[in-house]
Amino acid sequence: MATLIAPDHPSPVQDAELIRKACQGWGTDENAIISILGHRNAVQRKLIRLAYEELYQEDLVKRLESELSGDFERAVYRWLLDPADRDAVLVNVALKKTIPDYRVIVEIVCVHAPDELLTVKRAYQLRYKHSLEEDVASHTSGDIRKLLVALASTYRYNGDEINMKLAHSEASILHDAIQGNAFNHEEMIRILCTRSKAQILATVNCYKDNHGTSITKSLLGDPADEFLAALRTAFRCIKYPKKYFEKVLRNAINKVGTDEDALSRVIVTRAEKDLKEIKELYNKRNNSSLDHAVANDTSGDYKVFLLTLLGSVTSVEF
Amino acid sequence: MATLIAPDHPSPVQDAELIRKACQGWGTDENAIISILGHRNAVQRKLIRLAYEELYQEDLVKRLESELSGDFERAVYRWLLDPADRDAVLVNVALKKTIPDYRVIVEIVCVHAPDELLTVKRAYQLRYKHSLEEDVASHTSGDIRKLLVALASTYRYNGDEINMKLAHSEASILHDAIQGNAFNHEEMIRILCTRSKAQILATVNCYKDNHGTSITKSLLGDPADEFLAALRTAFRCIKYPKKYFEKVLRNAINKVGTDEDALSRVIVTRAEKDLKEIKELYNKRNNSSLDHAVANDTSGDYKVFLLTLLGSVTSVEF
Repeated sequence: MATLIAPDHPSPVQDAELIRKACQGWGTDENAIISILGHRNAVQRKLIRLAYEELYQEDLVKRLESELSGDFERAVYRWLLDPADRDAVLVNVALKKTIPDYRVIVEIVCVHAPDELLTVKRAYQLRYKHSLEEDVASHTSGDIRKLLVALASTYRYNGDEINMKLAHSEASILHDAIQGNAFNHEEMIRILCTRSKAQILATVNCYKDNHGTSITKSLLGDPADEFLAALRTAFRCIKYPKKYFEKVLRNAINKVGTDEDALSRVIVTRAEKDLKEIKELYNKRNNSSLDHAVANDTSGDYKVFLLTLLGSVTSVEF
Repeated sequence: MATLIAPDHPSPVQDAELIRKACQGWGTDENAIISILGHRNAVQRKLIRLAYEELYQEDLVKRLESELSGDFERAVYRWLLDPADRDAVLVNVALKKTIPDYRVIVEIVCVHAPDELLTVKRAYQLRYKHSLEEDVASHTSGDIRKLLVALASTYRYNGDEINMKLAHSEASILHDAIQGNAFNHEEMIRILCTRSKAQILATVNCYKDNHGTSITKSLLGDPADEFLAALRTAFRCIKYPKKYFEKVLRNAINKVGTDEDALSRVIVTRAEKDLKEIKELYNKRNNSSLDHAVANDTSGDYKVFLLTLLGSVTSVEF
């Protein structure tokens, strides 16, 4: 369930006018911007952008980029984009880093249902005039390229049917590959990148039953090994995405200095989907509330914005 | 352009009634069946199937399977299926052979535009409850698996933009791989399986300009090498599909005994698309007409049916 709190039928024109007012004059009224945008769902935000463009012949995203700054600006920017377009941007930004942020790429291509991933690929092509898989291929190399291109390309079967015999035999194939330290084994990539998520879930359950340990634990090794980390991330995102996101939030908060990129990414991408359950998992795992942890680790407008998306700040009028 | 000759607004109910009549009693009236189905486009055929099912609570495809036989039955069966579903069946049949028919798989995944391929993948999943890429992966192995899975998975960018600098540099990469006999070079698979068709076309043109020979000629080698043959097929299908189909028809006809599977496949899949241009290419290349060659190499109802789809038999009333 979502944490976002949004009214049923806000007026996009009125919202656009209020945001315009908040941007005019000396300084910007960030609270006004948060109290509107922090309480609007994806469709409502899109209508605000359209109304703003129509009223003022100006792109709201660009205007806010120039009005806001820092982590707050980046979070608002991501929040304003259409969800599929936002994911396309996240993949592209992750790819263009000096060392690509493989985990973000794996997260985005593995968490989505097949048709959602397709929407992200279409958004990517529209924005960058390249396919997502071709950019992944040209910014990576070696084993990690094989894994990422295959994960990004596949159009998985989305049905619930599973074949238990196959699950047992492929659990053995995975176990043999891991025992032989052949993490880059092509069979492992084949199973992870072509089977349906339901089938992979059955396979990793067989793995645990037959071998007494989880596949992600079996894939632990040198912490600097990016390929192993990508494999673990892929299995986690397919097995139990909410638990995966809880872990990303935990790591982001526990890191010395806080990983604002990861924090914003999870809150912005999940606020309209399943952030409520992710919060509950966080609270249980850490014996403290996510809202509290975010409030402690952030400050200013950025903090208010994140807490608004977390459904924690509701007093602001919207 | 199509060779199929179809009336504008035939009555699906009347068509279904006439086909039913042709199937009843002692023997089957194959001519009646050809004179109807051989002059109906995909939408019209679908409406006939729906009307037939509604009128007689019977699947027309199954009924015709039991009424007809041999090459004629197989060709009619393929003609009756929705185009995407037909391609899904063709891939599956090719995969399930003792030695998979790699070229048919490459043809189907390479000839289509990205969104058409997606429709085929959806039809495949609906029919077989697996993804196309997962079945390709589990029925193949080694280098050919790497190539086929990547070709089947990719969702290419479909735009016209090309990057000439990239085309030159990737033409060199291809040339180096071929010179070093590294046909299975991962760079070759990356370029062939992730770049847009427009970009690949630019790259193979650069290849020819810079190295004085075509990439398909450079990929000639041991005729029994299925991987090399699949690479050549992929480049041909992307470069110039109509010329590729002309070649398939030529080989099918010139083969001792005729390759009816290939003959039917090309005529059935292209009759509503570009068979007219393929015929012209055939006539030019072979100094004889395709209609004539097909008439010489086939017989009976099968011959009449193929010639009808080729637009050569028009005298039958429809």
